[in-house]
Amino acid sequence: MTQPRRRGRRPAGEDTRTALLAAARQVFTEQGFDGATVRGIASRAEVDPAMVNHWFGGKRGLFAAAVELPADPEAVRAHVFGGDREHIAERAVRAFVTVWDSTAGGGFAALIRSAATQEAAATMMREFITAIFGEAIRDLGVDRPELRLSLFGSQLSGLGLARYVVKLEPLASADVDTLVATVGRTLQHYLTGELELP
Amino acid sequence: MTQPRRRGRRPAGEDTRTALLAAARQVFTEQGFDGATVRGIASRAEVDPAMVNHWFGGKRGLFAAAVELPADPEAVRAHVFGGDREHIAERAVRAFVTVWDSTAGGGFAALIRSAATQEAAATMMREFITAIFGEAIRDLGVDRPELRLSLFGSQLSGLGLARYVVKLEPLASADVDTLVATVGRTLQHYLTGELELP
Repeated sequence: MTQPRRRGRRPAGEDTRTALLAAARQVFTEQGFDGATVRGIASRAEVDPAMVNHWFGGKRGLFAAAVELPADPEAVRAHVFGGDREHIAERAVRAFVTVWDSTAGGGFAALIRSAATQEAAATMMREFITAIFGEAIRDLGVDRPELRLSLFGSQLSGLGLARYVVKLEPLASADVDTLVATVGRTLQHYLTGELELP
Repeated sequence: MTQPRRRGRRPAGEDTRTALLAAARQVFTEQGFDGATVRGIASRAEVDPAMVNHWFGGKRGLFAAAVELPADPEAVRAHVFGGDREHIAERAVRAFVTVWDSTAGGGFAALIRSAATQEAAATMMREFITAIFGEAIRDLGVDRPELRLSLFGSQLSGLGLARYVVKLEPLASADVDTLVATVGRTLQHYLTGELELP
Protein backbone atom coordinates (compact mmCIF):
# COMPACT_ATOMS: atom_id res chain seq x y z
CA MET A 1 0.00 0.00 0.00
CA THR A 2 1.37 3.40 -0.89
CA GLN A 3 1.32 6.07 1.74
CA PRO A 4 -0.87 9.07 0.97
CA ARG A 5 0.93 12.37 0.68
CA ARG A 6 1.68 13.92 4.02
CA ARG A 7 0.06 17.29 4.68
CA GLY A 8 0.85 17.62 8.34
CA ARG A 9 -1.58 14.78 8.97
CA ARG A 10 -1.09 11.28 10.34
CA PRO A 11 0.27 8.59 7.99
CA ALA A 12 -2.07 5.90 6.66
CA GLY A 13 -1.84 2.73 8.71
CA GLU A 14 -3.05 1.25 11.95
CA ASP A 15 -2.50 4.61 13.66
CA THR A 16 -4.91 6.22 11.22
CA ARG A 17 -7.48 3.50 11.76
CA THR A 18 -7.20 3.85 15.54
CA ALA A 19 -7.42 7.63 15.38
CA LEU A 20 -10.51 7.41 13.15
CA LEU A 21 -12.24 5.02 15.54
CA ALA A 22 -11.55 7.27 18.52
CA ALA A 23 -12.73 10.36 16.64
CA ALA A 24 -15.80 8.50 15.35
CA ARG A 25 -16.87 7.52 18.87
CA GLN A 26 -16.62 11.16 19.94
CA VAL A 27 -18.35 12.67 16.94
CA PHE A 28 -21.14 10.07 16.70
CA THR A 29 -21.83 10.60 20.40
CA GLU A 30 -21.91 14.38 20.05
CA GLN A 31 -23.82 14.62 16.77
CA GLY A 32 -25.62 11.30 16.28
CA PHE A 33 -25.33 9.02 13.27
CA ASP A 34 -27.19 11.34 10.90
CA GLY A 35 -25.46 14.50 12.10
CA ALA A 36 -21.91 13.18 11.94
CA THR A 37 -20.04 13.57 8.66
CA VAL A 38 -17.07 11.70 7.27
CA ARG A 39 -15.31 15.01 6.81
CA GLY A 40 -15.96 16.04 10.43
CA ILE A 41 -14.70 12.75 11.83
CA ALA A 42 -11.59 12.79 9.62
CA SER A 43 -10.91 16.35 10.69
CA ARG A 44 -11.21 15.41 14.36
CA ALA A 45 -8.79 12.53 13.75
CA GLU A 46 -6.48 14.80 11.75
CA VAL A 47 -6.47 12.43 8.79
CA ASP A 48 -7.53 12.70 5.16
CA PRO A 49 -11.29 11.98 4.70
CA ALA A 50 -10.37 9.43 1.98
CA MET A 51 -8.99 7.27 4.78
CA VAL A 52 -12.56 6.61 6.00
CA ASN A 53 -13.39 4.88 2.73
CA HIS A 54 -10.02 3.20 2.67
CA TRP A 55 -10.34 1.65 6.11
CA PHE A 56 -14.08 1.34 6.64
CA GLY A 57 -15.80 1.63 3.27
CA GLY A 58 -17.74 4.70 4.40
CA LYS A 59 -19.67 6.17 7.30
CA ARG A 60 -21.79 3.09 8.04
CA GLY A 61 -18.79 0.82 8.16
CA LEU A 62 -16.99 3.27 10.43
CA PHE A 63 -20.00 3.37 12.74
CA ALA A 64 -20.22 -0.43 12.83
CA ALA A 65 -16.53 -0.65 13.74
CA ALA A 66 -16.82 2.15 16.31
CA VAL A 67 -19.57 0.30 18.18
CA GLU A 68 -17.81 -3.02 17.52
CA LEU A 69 -20.59 -4.66 15.54
CA PRO A 70 -19.34 -8.18 14.81
CA ALA A 71 -20.48 -8.12 11.15
CA ASP A 72 -20.64 -5.76 8.22
CA PRO A 73 -24.20 -4.36 8.30
CA GLU A 74 -24.29 -3.65 4.55
CA ALA A 75 -23.38 -7.24 3.79
CA VAL A 76 -26.01 -8.50 6.24
CA ARG A 77 -28.65 -6.28 4.68
CA ALA A 78 -27.76 -7.37 1.15
CA HIS A 79 -27.98 -11.02 2.18
CA VAL A 80 -31.21 -10.70 4.21
CA PHE A 81 -33.16 -8.50 1.78
CA GLY A 82 -31.49 -9.69 -1.41
CA GLY A 83 -33.19 -13.09 -1.60
CA ASP A 84 -36.82 -14.06 -2.05
CA ARG A 85 -39.46 -12.12 -0.21
CA GLU A 86 -40.99 -15.06 1.63
CA HIS A 87 -37.81 -15.89 3.53
CA ILE A 88 -36.49 -12.47 4.54
CA ALA A 89 -37.26 -13.14 8.20
CA GLU A 90 -35.72 -16.58 8.11
CA ARG A 91 -32.48 -15.14 6.72
CA ALA A 92 -32.65 -12.32 9.28
CA VAL A 93 -32.98 -14.73 12.21
CA ARG A 94 -30.18 -16.96 10.91
CA ALA A 95 -27.88 -13.98 10.36
CA PHE A 96 -28.73 -12.44 13.74
CA VAL A 97 -28.06 -15.64 15.64
CA THR A 98 -24.92 -16.49 13.69
CA VAL A 99 -23.46 -13.04 14.25
CA TRP A 100 -24.30 -12.64 17.91
CA ASP A 101 -23.76 -16.25 19.00
CA SER A 102 -20.20 -15.72 17.72
CA THR A 103 -19.59 -13.15 20.47
CA ALA A 104 -21.02 -15.53 23.09
CA GLY A 105 -23.65 -12.94 23.91
CA GLY A 106 -21.16 -10.42 25.27
CA GLY A 107 -21.33 -8.27 22.16
CA PHE A 108 -25.08 -7.90 22.23
CA ALA A 109 -25.12 -7.15 25.95
CA ALA A 110 -22.50 -4.43 25.41
CA LEU A 111 -24.63 -2.84 22.70
CA ILE A 112 -27.74 -2.87 24.89
CA ARG A 113 -25.81 -1.56 27.86
CA SER A 114 -24.56 1.46 25.97
CA ALA A 115 -28.00 2.18 24.49
CA ALA A 116 -29.58 1.99 27.95
CA THR A 117 -26.86 4.10 29.55
CA GLN A 118 -26.33 6.96 27.12
CA GLU A 119 -29.11 8.77 25.33
CA ALA A 120 -26.60 9.54 22.56
CA ALA A 121 -25.86 5.85 22.02
CA ALA A 122 -29.57 5.09 21.79
CA THR A 123 -30.01 7.88 19.26
CA MET A 124 -27.13 6.59 17.16
CA MET A 125 -28.55 3.09 17.22
CA ARG A 126 -31.97 4.33 16.16
CA GLU A 127 -30.59 6.37 13.28
CA PHE A 128 -28.32 3.55 12.21
CA ILE A 129 -31.12 0.93 12.19
CA THR A 130 -33.26 3.30 10.15
CA ALA A 131 -30.44 4.09 7.74
CA ILE A 132 -29.62 0.43 7.18
CA PHE A 133 -33.05 -1.22 7.09
CA GLY A 134 -35.52 1.59 6.48
CA GLU A 135 -34.92 1.76 2.76
CA ALA A 136 -34.89 -2.03 2.35
CA ILE A 137 -38.32 -2.24 3.98
CA ARG A 138 -39.71 0.66 1.97
CA ASP A 139 -38.48 -1.14 -1.15
CA LEU A 140 -40.78 -4.07 -0.30
CA GLY A 141 -43.65 -1.83 -1.38
CA VAL A 142 -45.64 -2.55 1.80
CA ASP A 143 -47.93 -0.19 3.71
CA ARG A 144 -46.68 1.42 6.92
CA PRO A 145 -42.97 0.69 6.36
CA GLU A 146 -41.84 2.69 9.41
CA LEU A 147 -44.24 0.84 11.72
CA ARG A 148 -43.10 -2.46 10.23
CA LEU A 149 -39.46 -1.55 10.79
CA SER A 150 -40.05 -0.68 14.43
CA LEU A 151 -42.08 -3.86 15.03
CA PHE A 152 -39.36 -5.89 13.32
CA GLY A 153 -36.74 -4.16 15.48
CA SER A 154 -38.72 -4.78 18.66
CA GLN A 155 -38.96 -8.55 18.11
CA LEU A 156 -35.41 -9.01 16.86
CA SER A 157 -33.87 -6.96 19.67
CA GLY A 158 -36.16 -8.75 22.14
CA LEU A 159 -34.79 -12.06 20.88
CA GLY A 160 -31.31 -10.74 21.63
CA LEU A 161 -32.35 -9.55 25.07
CA ALA A 162 -33.98 -12.88 25.98
CA ARG A 163 -31.23 -15.04 24.46
CA TYR A 164 -28.08 -13.12 25.37
CA VAL A 165 -28.89 -10.86 28.33
CA VAL A 166 -31.68 -12.32 30.46
CA LYS A 167 -30.95 -15.84 29.11
CA LEU A 168 -34.50 -17.11 29.32
CA GLU A 169 -34.58 -20.83 28.61
CA PRO A 170 -35.32 -22.64 26.39
CA LEU A 171 -34.98 -19.67 24.04
CA ALA A 172 -31.43 -18.91 25.17
CA SER A 173 -30.13 -22.23 23.88
CA ALA A 174 -32.77 -23.00 21.24
CA ASP A 175 -31.45 -24.15 17.87
CA VAL A 176 -31.84 -21.73 15.01
CA ASP A 177 -34.59 -23.76 13.28
CA THR A 178 -36.80 -23.37 16.35
CA LEU A 179 -36.15 -19.63 16.34
CA VAL A 180 -36.97 -19.39 12.64
CA ALA A 181 -40.25 -21.26 13.21
CA THR A 182 -41.32 -19.01 16.09
CA VAL A 183 -39.65 -15.60 16.12
CA GLY A 184 -39.04 -15.77 12.35
CA ARG A 185 -42.75 -16.33 11.73
CA THR A 186 -43.49 -13.16 13.70
CA LEU A 187 -40.84 -11.15 11.90
CA GLN A 188 -42.11 -12.21 8.49
CA HIS A 189 -45.62 -11.14 9.49
CA TYR A 190 -44.30 -7.75 10.60
CA LEU A 191 -42.53 -7.28 7.26
CA THR A 192 -45.01 -8.54 4.69
CA GLY A 193 -48.14 -9.71 6.52
CA GLU A 194 -51.40 -7.85 6.77
CA LEU A 195 -51.37 -5.50 9.75
CA GLU A 196 -54.80 -5.27 11.29
CA LEU A 197 -54.63 -1.79 12.72
CA PRO A 198 -57.38 -0.29 14.86
CA MET B 1 -48.99 0.53 64.40
CA THR B 2 -47.45 -1.11 67.47
CA GLN B 3 -43.73 -1.51 67.66
CA PRO B 4 -42.51 -5.12 67.70
CA ARG B 5 -40.56 -6.17 70.76
CA ARG B 6 -36.94 -5.13 70.62
CA ARG B 7 -34.41 -7.95 70.61
CA GLY B 8 -31.32 -5.98 69.83
CA ARG B 9 -32.81 -5.42 66.36
CA ARG B 10 -33.93 -2.31 64.58
CA PRO B 11 -37.38 -0.89 65.33
CA ALA B 12 -40.22 -1.25 62.82
CA GLY B 13 -40.60 1.83 60.68
CA GLU B 14 -39.06 3.54 57.70
CA ASP B 15 -35.61 2.59 58.99
CA THR B 16 -36.60 -1.05 58.86
CA ARG B 17 -37.95 -0.70 55.37
CA THR B 18 -34.78 1.02 54.20
CA ALA B 19 -32.54 -1.55 55.88
CA LEU B 20 -34.53 -4.38 54.27
CA LEU B 21 -34.22 -2.83 50.81
CA ALA B 22 -30.45 -2.42 51.19
CA ALA B 23 -30.05 -5.97 52.49
CA ALA B 24 -32.31 -7.33 49.74
CA ARG B 25 -30.21 -5.73 47.02
CA GLN B 26 -27.09 -7.33 48.48
CA VAL B 27 -28.56 -10.78 49.07
CA PHE B 28 -30.45 -11.00 45.75
CA THR B 29 -27.25 -10.01 43.96
CA GLU B 30 -25.18 -12.59 45.83
CA GLN B 31 -27.65 -15.47 45.76
CA GLY B 32 -30.15 -14.77 42.99
CA PHE B 33 -33.91 -14.58 43.37
CA ASP B 34 -34.39 -18.30 43.97
CA GLY B 35 -31.44 -18.65 46.34
CA ALA B 36 -32.27 -15.67 48.55
CA THR B 37 -34.53 -16.30 51.54
CA VAL B 38 -36.69 -13.93 53.55
CA ARG B 39 -34.90 -15.12 56.67
CA GLY B 40 -31.47 -14.46 55.18
CA ILE B 41 -32.39 -10.97 54.03
CA ALA B 42 -33.97 -10.09 57.38
CA SER B 43 -30.90 -11.39 59.17
CA ARG B 44 -28.63 -9.26 56.98
CA ALA B 45 -30.82 -6.23 57.77
CA GLU B 46 -30.90 -7.14 61.44
CA VAL B 47 -34.69 -7.05 61.56
CA ASP B 48 -37.39 -9.58 62.33
CA PRO B 49 -38.34 -11.69 59.27
CA ALA B 50 -42.01 -10.81 59.88
CA MET B 51 -41.13 -7.28 58.79
CA VAL B 52 -40.70 -8.52 55.21
CA ASN B 53 -44.34 -9.51 55.08
CA HIS B 54 -45.35 -6.40 56.92
CA TRP B 55 -43.63 -3.99 54.53
CA PHE B 56 -43.52 -5.88 51.25
CA GLY B 57 -46.03 -8.73 51.41
CA GLY B 58 -43.30 -11.33 50.89
CA LYS B 59 -40.18 -12.08 48.89
CA ARG B 60 -41.58 -11.15 45.47
CA GLY B 61 -42.82 -7.78 46.69
CA LEU B 62 -39.47 -7.12 48.34
CA PHE B 63 -37.68 -7.97 45.09
CA ALA B 64 -39.98 -5.69 43.10
CA ALA B 65 -39.30 -2.84 45.52
CA ALA B 66 -35.54 -3.55 45.56
CA VAL B 67 -35.31 -3.22 41.77
CA GLU B 68 -37.84 -0.37 41.83
CA LEU B 69 -40.49 -2.01 39.68
CA PRO B 70 -43.22 0.61 39.29
CA ALA B 71 -46.06 -1.86 39.91
CA ASP B 72 -46.91 -4.82 42.09
CA PRO B 73 -46.07 -7.85 39.93
CA GLU B 74 -48.56 -10.11 41.71
CA ALA B 75 -51.36 -7.68 41.03
CA VAL B 76 -50.31 -7.36 37.40
CA ARG B 77 -50.24 -11.13 37.00
CA ALA B 78 -53.65 -11.55 38.62
CA HIS B 79 -55.11 -8.92 36.31
CA VAL B 80 -53.45 -10.18 33.12
CA PHE B 81 -54.04 -13.90 33.61
CA GLY B 82 -57.21 -13.63 35.68
CA GLY B 83 -59.53 -12.65 32.81
CA ASP B 84 -60.62 -14.50 29.71
CA ARG B 85 -58.04 -16.51 27.83
CA GLU B 86 -58.48 -14.73 24.47
CA HIS B 87 -57.41 -11.36 25.82
CA ILE B 88 -54.45 -12.21 28.03
CA ALA B 89 -52.04 -10.55 25.62
CA GLU B 90 -54.19 -7.46 25.25
CA ARG B 91 -54.28 -7.01 29.02
CA ALA B 92 -50.52 -7.67 29.19
CA VAL B 93 -49.76 -4.97 26.60
CA ARG B 94 -52.07 -2.47 28.27
CA ALA B 95 -50.56 -3.16 31.69
CA PHE B 96 -46.98 -3.06 30.38
CA VAL B 97 -47.47 0.26 28.61
CA THR B 98 -49.43 1.82 31.47
CA VAL B 99 -46.79 0.84 34.02
CA TRP B 100 -43.69 1.79 32.05
CA ASP B 101 -45.08 4.89 30.34
CA SER B 102 -45.65 6.17 33.88
CA THR B 103 -41.89 6.25 34.46
CA ALA B 104 -41.35 8.08 31.15
CA GLY B 105 -39.19 5.19 29.98
CA GLY B 106 -36.47 5.82 32.55
CA GLY B 107 -37.57 2.91 34.70
CA PHE B 108 -37.42 0.37 31.91
CA ALA B 109 -34.03 1.63 30.73
CA ALA B 110 -32.68 1.30 34.27
CA LEU B 111 -33.88 -2.29 34.47
CA ILE B 112 -32.30 -3.17 31.12
CA ARG B 113 -29.08 -1.38 32.04
CA SER B 114 -28.64 -3.40 35.22
CA ALA B 115 -29.46 -6.68 33.46
CA ALA B 116 -26.94 -5.91 30.71
CA THR B 117 -24.28 -4.79 33.19
CA GLN B 118 -24.38 -7.39 35.94
CA GLU B 119 -24.73 -11.09 35.36
CA ALA B 120 -26.35 -11.32 38.81
CA ALA B 121 -29.05 -8.82 37.87
CA ALA B 122 -29.82 -10.76 34.70
CA THR B 123 -30.08 -13.97 36.71
CA MET B 124 -32.45 -12.35 39.21
CA MET B 125 -34.62 -11.01 36.43
CA ARG B 126 -34.79 -14.41 34.76
CA GLU B 127 -35.72 -16.19 37.96
CA PHE B 128 -38.25 -13.53 38.84
CA ILE B 129 -39.98 -13.62 35.44
CA THR B 130 -40.17 -17.40 35.70
CA ALA B 131 -41.48 -17.28 39.26
CA ILE B 132 -44.16 -14.75 38.39
CA PHE B 133 -45.36 -15.88 34.96
CA GLY B 134 -44.17 -19.48 34.62
CA GLU B 135 -46.96 -20.95 36.68
CA ALA B 136 -49.63 -18.76 35.09
CA ILE B 137 -48.59 -19.98 31.64
CA ARG B 138 -48.41 -23.62 32.74
CA ASP B 139 -51.93 -23.19 34.12
CA LEU B 140 -53.16 -22.40 30.61
CA GLY B 141 -52.71 -26.10 29.84
CA VAL B 142 -50.73 -25.39 26.66
CA ASP B 143 -47.83 -27.40 25.21
CA ARG B 144 -44.27 -26.11 25.65
CA PRO B 145 -45.07 -23.59 28.43
CA GLU B 146 -41.39 -22.70 29.01
CA LEU B 147 -40.80 -21.95 25.33
CA ARG B 148 -44.00 -19.88 25.27
CA LEU B 149 -42.88 -17.92 28.33
CA SER B 150 -39.51 -17.13 26.78
CA LEU B 151 -41.08 -16.11 23.45
CA PHE B 152 -43.60 -13.96 25.32
CA GLY B 153 -40.74 -12.40 27.31
CA SER B 154 -38.71 -11.74 24.17
CA GLN B 155 -41.49 -9.80 22.43
CA LEU B 156 -42.63 -7.89 25.50
CA SER B 157 -39.12 -6.88 26.52
CA GLY B 158 -38.37 -6.03 22.89
CA LEU B 159 -41.36 -3.71 22.92
CA GLY B 160 -39.83 -2.01 25.95
CA LEU B 161 -36.44 -1.77 24.29
CA ALA B 162 -37.86 -0.28 21.09
CA ARG B 163 -40.30 2.05 22.84
CA TYR B 164 -38.29 3.26 25.84
CA VAL B 165 -34.61 2.74 25.07
CA VAL B 166 -33.94 2.91 21.33
CA LYS B 167 -37.14 4.93 20.79
CA LEU B 168 -37.90 3.63 17.32
CA GLU B 169 -40.76 5.57 15.80
CA PRO B 170 -43.64 5.18 15.28
CA LEU B 171 -43.62 2.42 17.90
CA ALA B 172 -42.16 4.69 20.56
CA SER B 173 -45.19 6.96 20.54
CA ALA B 174 -47.83 4.58 19.19
CA ASP B 175 -51.14 4.52 21.06
CA VAL B 176 -51.88 1.42 23.05
CA ASP B 177 -54.58 0.16 20.64
CA THR B 178 -52.01 0.00 17.85
CA LEU B 179 -49.67 -1.94 20.12
CA VAL B 180 -52.45 -4.35 21.10
CA ALA B 181 -53.27 -4.96 17.42
CA THR B 182 -49.65 -5.68 16.47
CA VAL B 183 -47.46 -6.75 19.38
CA GLY B 184 -50.47 -8.05 21.30
CA ARG B 185 -51.43 -10.30 18.40
CA THR B 186 -47.95 -11.82 18.50
CA LEU B 187 -48.01 -12.26 22.26
CA GLN B 188 -51.39 -14.00 22.15
CA HIS B 189 -50.05 -16.38 19.50
CA TYR B 190 -47.04 -17.16 21.69
CA LEU B 191 -49.30 -17.91 24.65
CA THR B 192 -52.18 -19.89 23.16
CA GLY B 193 -51.57 -20.23 19.41
CA GLU B 194 -50.31 -23.31 17.64
CA LEU B 195 -46.53 -23.34 17.56
CA GLU B 196 -45.30 -24.91 14.35
CA LEU B 197 -42.01 -26.30 15.53
CA PRO B 198 -39.49 -27.94 13.21
